[in-house]
Amino acid sequence: MKKVRVAIIGSGPAGLTAAIYTARAELSTAVITGPQFGGQIATTHDVDNFPAFPDGITGPELTERMKDQAEKFGAEFLWDSVTAIDLSKGSPFLIKTHSEEISADAVIVTIGASPRHLNIPGEIEYTGRGVSYCATCDGAFYRNKEVIVVGGGDSALQEAIFLTKFANTVTIIHRRDELRASVALQTKAKANPKIRFIFDTVVDEVKGENGLTTGVTLRNVKTDAKTHMPVDGVFIFIGYDPNSAIFGGQLALDDQGYLSVNAADHSTSVEGVFAGGEIHDQTFRQAITASGQGCAAALMTIKWVDDREALQPLDDMQPVAQA
Amino acid sequence: MKKVRVAIIGSGPAGLTAAIYTARAELSTAVITGPQFGGQIATTHDVDNFPAFPDGITGPELTERMKDQAEKFGAEFLWDSVTAIDLSKGSPFLIKTHSEEISADAVIVTIGASPRHLNIPGEIEYTGRGVSYCATCDGAFYRNKEVIVVGGGDSALQEAIFLTKFANTVTIIHRRDELRASVALQTKAKANPKIRFIFDTVVDEVKGENGLTTGVTLRNVKTDAKTHMPVDGVFIFIGYDPNSAIFGGQLALDDQGYLSVNAADHSTSVEGVFAGGEIHDQTFRQAITASGQGCAAALMTIKWVDDREALQPLDDMQPVAQA
Repeated sequence: MKKVRVAIIGSGPAGLTAAIYTARAELSTAVITGPQFGGQIATTHDVDNFPAFPDGITGPELTERMKDQAEKFGAEFLWDSVTAIDLSKGSPFLIKTHSEEISADAVIVTIGASPRHLNIPGEIEYTGRGVSYCATCDGAFYRNKEVIVVGGGDSALQEAIFLTKFANTVTIIHRRDELRASVALQTKAKANPKIRFIFDTVVDEVKGENGLTTGVTLRNVKTDAKTHMPVDGVFIFIGYDPNSAIFGGQLALDDQGYLSVNAADHSTSVEGVFAGGEIHDQTFRQAITASGQGCAAALMTIKWVDDREALQPLDDMQPVAQA
Repeated sequence: MKKVRVAIIGSGPAGLTAAIYTARAELSTAVITGPQFGGQIATTHDVDNFPAFPDGITGPELTERMKDQAEKFGAEFLWDSVTAIDLSKGSPFLIKTHSEEISADAVIVTIGASPRHLNIPGEIEYTGRGVSYCATCDGAFYRNKEVIVVGGGDSALQEAIFLTKFANTVTIIHRRDELRASVALQTKAKANPKIRFIFDTVVDEVKGENGLTTGVTLRNVKTDAKTHMPVDGVFIFIGYDPNSAIFGGQLALDDQGYLSVNAADHSTSVEGVFAGGEIHDQTFRQAITASGQGCAAALMTIKWVDDREALQPLDDMQPVAQA
């Protein structure tokens, strides 16, 4: 059994930043990376809004640099996924992965959320090369380009409106004949001259050439008619799923399955378990906000571990007189 | 009069990150830098915990890179300080600096807080070169070194305990004969074999050689006796002052003068005015947490400006039928 002071579950910007802080504070730290090292940002080819990289940086390079920094301070990376976790007996917590068991005094949960996929040919192949799940991240790369937005809820319309700052036209593709988004957002989107709508239609395939998206195959769900539409960008906003299944029944979740986290100290419903990043944040979802939250969760973890350790040896001591 | 969509007051990591986001979202953005470009982090020589810089970076270089990135997206930097601001009439807000007047649809306040200084010879000269106001930032540079902590409150003792992870000895210098810190922290500090106390004593001067701190001159306030103490690091924790004076009476402040900010959306008590960084955060105080908060404040600002703009032209329009 591996024993560490801090186990970090997840390896996106929140987890990597947390590891930099806990390892640098001399707490032995294991990062359990999960199947996608680097999290969502690692699937983004060009990141040009992470501060202090004026020439941009690729997602994989950004997270690799954070990993190197955490390793330099002594964090250990376990290239494995959590299969079970027992938080019921309090600290130390027991975590099982495919290949080992870990005992951790404190846990930082940064396991993130996953954008829902269309699961169509070309989607994974062209992710970061025309296919995106984040308009704030990638919209600026589509100046004067033609893009589609897939979805019909609030976030699809909000992101479509945002994309009109850059794109020539933004066509919203929705599988039903009416939108789920709020009427206010619908009114706003419909008043925008750059936004067009195609209803009753799904995307069957993303097509590309030389590694870049060039178009999509659309299918009308009522007539089954297929058409080819040339586009430069495909923005998919059909929701997110927080990766909280492994904590079911052990940590308090909200009604959408996100962790309930105290905003002031990043604590969860179990003492000694802290969290940061998209596993609790549905609003901001940026690499830099996740990093900030990971740091905050780490600072609170360091304080909790240090306070607890300091109290234990004092049990046998005499009271100390005030100076 | 200069007209911008967003005025950012302050140029630390929170303000610079906010500028990257608002400028990249095609909102004209002016950053009013204040007297200390880059904020507190710009006075730190070595930053080795900002994520994605595994070999470390200097504070000035870190903030310069953020500025370059914001400028690349079109943010304008005004090398000036705010002399007056009028939030009373709502948006657009009027801001005066020494040299111009600015009208801004939205304002992001990232003006920060300032650590209280001892105001002694050598203090400014050796800041970032032995003199520090942040143990979390700089403690790891003092492995096996001798350091002093100046102060007697909770933060002085917390930081002293943190510094024992690295330093050989941590001597707490306090001007009174008893500590202000909580009894629990006092008990913990006094039980730590690396911590020593010198009471009734102030630091009169920081001495150095070749640009690095080598010692301090101590003075006993009861006897006036002066002694030289060789030390490698001087950590000063005598409190912070939020730079909120210019908002007096216009934005809600807490009892310590920090901005009251809604944690969920980074809004202040005036609609259209958002905030991030140490002007409202007394807990985390890191460059990366400030950057995250600046990004969050910017995202909410972008949403607020865009929503407001979209509503205005719609006033004359016919209701749009649902599809």
